[in-house]
Amino acid sequence: MARNTKALSDSQIKKLAPTWRVKKKQLYKKFIFSNFSDALGFIVQIGVEAERLNHHPTIHNTYNKVEIYLSTHSINGLSTLDIKLADNIDNI
Amino acid sequence: MARNTKALSDSQIKKLAPTWRVKKKQLYKKFIFSNFSDALGFIVQIGVEAERLNHHPTIHNTYNKVEIYLSTHSINGLSTLDIKLADNIDNI
Amino acid sequence: MARNTKALSDSQIKKLAPTWRVKKKQLYKKFIFSNFSDALGFIVQIGVEAERLNHHPTIHNTYNKVEIYLSTHSINGLSTLDIKLADNIDNI
Amino acid sequence: MARNTKALSDSQIKKLAPTWRVKKKQLYKKFIFSNFSDALGFIVQIGVEAERLNHHPTIHNTYNKVEIYLSTHSINGLSTLDIKLADNIDNI
Repeated sequence: MARNTKALSDSQIKKLAPTWRVKKKQLYKKFIFSNFSDALGFIVQIGVEAERLNHHPTIHNTYNKVEIYLSTHSINGLSTLDIKLADNIDNI
Repeated sequence: MARNTKALSDSQIKKLAPTWRVKKKQLYKKFIFSNFSDALGFIVQIGVEAERLNHHPTIHNTYNKVEIYLSTHSINGLSTLDIKLADNIDNI
Repeated sequence: MARNTKALSDSQIKKLAPTWRVKKKQLYKKFIFSNFSDALGFIVQIGVEAERLNHHPTIHNTYNKVEIYLSTHSINGLSTLDIKLADNIDNI
Repeated sequence: MARNTKALSDSQIKKLAPTWRVKKKQLYKKFIFSNFSDALGFIVQIGVEAERLNHHPTIHNTYNKVEIYLSTHSINGLSTLDIKLADNIDNI
């Protein structure tokens, strides 16, 4: 997995995940749904994608709101794995 | 719950759930998704709606395919509860 | 819902939810699972219970860790609804 | 994936998945839960395991009942992938 675990620079991150914010070395995005069942369905879809990539986000949920934080612990930063998962989440 | 548990006639069902088929006294619909995670997210959303209505479907899933069967056991037929759940599923 | 939305006192909360901590006027509990799929299954079970009670927690998840925060917004405190949901979560 | 896709013999299957039945060339098992939310949580856990193995079951659910069918389409029979997924499901 060495290929994925090199830290990306800030400019690379901006280019590769332009719709995500960077907060405390993590990619961050907030999603608002019309109700709780849509939010929970989304969380489950993220979970399946995460398991497939063997790379798991931090998820915060309150009712129709889902906040996602992505980072790569082993490098204490952001890697191409985070970009890949961010892409997959955006494609849900 | 007496209000909901009167059996609907065939013509009522056709009018109230025009996009669903009737198979063996059940409302039936097949959904095809682009992958498994979309299908599983959909199943969870159905589950939340079902619990809220306290009326649960039969769900068949294989990979990206989800088949739903709705009926009201207490009347061995179809009631307005099935129509309501069918509507909610269509709105997911 | 007036019956449920009276704020509970600290001593009532301690008695009614003895295994939960109180953090910033919320009931709080952390659950650790052996893997991500157990954690996600737990989140879905909580979601179904929450929808049935029409009372939703804040959920934080990272891999095998699930943290739950319960409160009743309308009273800016803790009510019997929070106790009920805490009980249901403990019984999962 | 050639290693996994050799068909197992009936005696191998009986030995490797002794608690599962064979029905029409599929491994079959029925699970009964105390309520719907437990059943749905179980389905989600199966889903995550399935995605990790990239091998998906057929799942039938009605309220607290979950029936699982496992087979390997590419060989029209049962392979070690089915045994692996059956094991993972039993360990949930």
